[in-house]
Amino acid sequence: MAVSDNTVERLSIYRRLLRMQGVSDREYVYSHELAEMVSGTAAQVRRDLMELGVPGHSKHGYRTDELLTAIGAFLDDPDGTHAILIGLGDLGRAVLRFAKTGGMLIRIVAAFDNDAMKIGRVVHGYRCQPVAELESFLRANRVDVAIIAAPSSAAQGICDRLVASGVRGIVNFAPIPIRVPDGVRVERIDIATVLEKVACLVRRASGERGA
Amino acid sequence: MAVSDNTVERLSIYRRLLRMQGVSDREYVYSHELAEMVSGTAAQVRRDLMELGVPGHSKHGYRTDELLTAIGAFLDDPDGTHAILIGLGDLGRAVLRFAKTGGMLIRIVAAFDNDAMKIGRVVHGYRCQPVAELESFLRANRVDVAIIAAPSSAAQGICDRLVASGVRGIVNFAPIPIRVPDGVRVERIDIATVLEKVACLVRRASGERGA
Repeated sequence: MAVSDNTVERLSIYRRLLRMQGVSDREYVYSHELAEMVSGTAAQVRRDLMELGVPGHSKHGYRTDELLTAIGAFLDDPDGTHAILIGLGDLGRAVLRFAKTGGMLIRIVAAFDNDAMKIGRVVHGYRCQPVAELESFLRANRVDVAIIAAPSSAAQGICDRLVASGVRGIVNFAPIPIRVPDGVRVERIDIATVLEKVACLVRRASGERGA
Repeated sequence: MAVSDNTVERLSIYRRLLRMQGVSDREYVYSHELAEMVSGTAAQVRRDLMELGVPGHSKHGYRTDELLTAIGAFLDDPDGTHAILIGLGDLGRAVLRFAKTGGMLIRIVAAFDNDAMKIGRVVHGYRCQPVAELESFLRANRVDVAIIAAPSSAAQGICDRLVASGVRGIVNFAPIPIRVPDGVRVERIDIATVLEKVACLVRRASGERGA
């Protein structure tokens, strides 16, 4: 079943909405309600859910428990997803905390940093390991996704080492693009660029209104 | 001059690359070098830079100082961009630190939280203000962009208050979409969804290879 990146993204969001207070205790939910929550269309929601094979009931909409089961079966690895984090600055710590409390099914199994002051310390329950031991860790452990929260100058080098050790999924928080060979998935979370972009677009839009 | 969102995003990234070690001390840079750094094409880079009116020199490429000046004139508000942050958890603190040390021209002018334990405390140089005072702050101060790093359950309510007070640019870190009227720009930074998406896509790709 070929499913687009955008569908995968929306399914993740539908699930989070279905688990929220005020929705999670309901037996049924309509496609137009989910659509409204994601600023999309009911037709789009129905297409996404049809891809999962969830039957809609014409009167009541979708059973929330059926939806959650179907989305979980699609998105989640039955054995759990194992992630590692490289970079234990403020952002890395926020990601660790987030992974623990965000209700995600992704488990961070190890955290690495280069800073001698951090190595060996325990942060949010993780003992910080030296980046030098990345390869030996990857040889001994299954890792599905690596999260790079290191400085820009170090990001490409770390990425190359991860890929050479067989990691096929990377989330890059460094505010520069990293290059990977075919077959490796990279997603950027580029806070600096997003902030600059919003600021620029708002300013230009207000300039056009003022003109 | 109508410029696409993606161009704005790339200009922000070009500038960050031009400022990096090993590039910033060079007098000229070629379009194909910038292209390689962003995994794009030289033609795309040239189109982006043509929109800024930066002349390329056929022999040497672009003067880095001319590029930096032109990108700055396009992206930056000459009066600086004023941002506020709502939510001082781990993520909010990471954003504060980032804004201070990331070399951004966006200045966070105030930080808000609802937690009585945080209000009045100073975090990374910011005194935490109560969310109840959001409106009075916005009446008295110019704010271009608001950054929401609050829990999902609070995000839409905070967004509505920001919009009612005239904020036209929002960056939303809460892992659910928020709804805004026309004329307001929202960009999402949805860490949970990105992590779930990468994990799912890597797993499905390896399943297809295995089949």
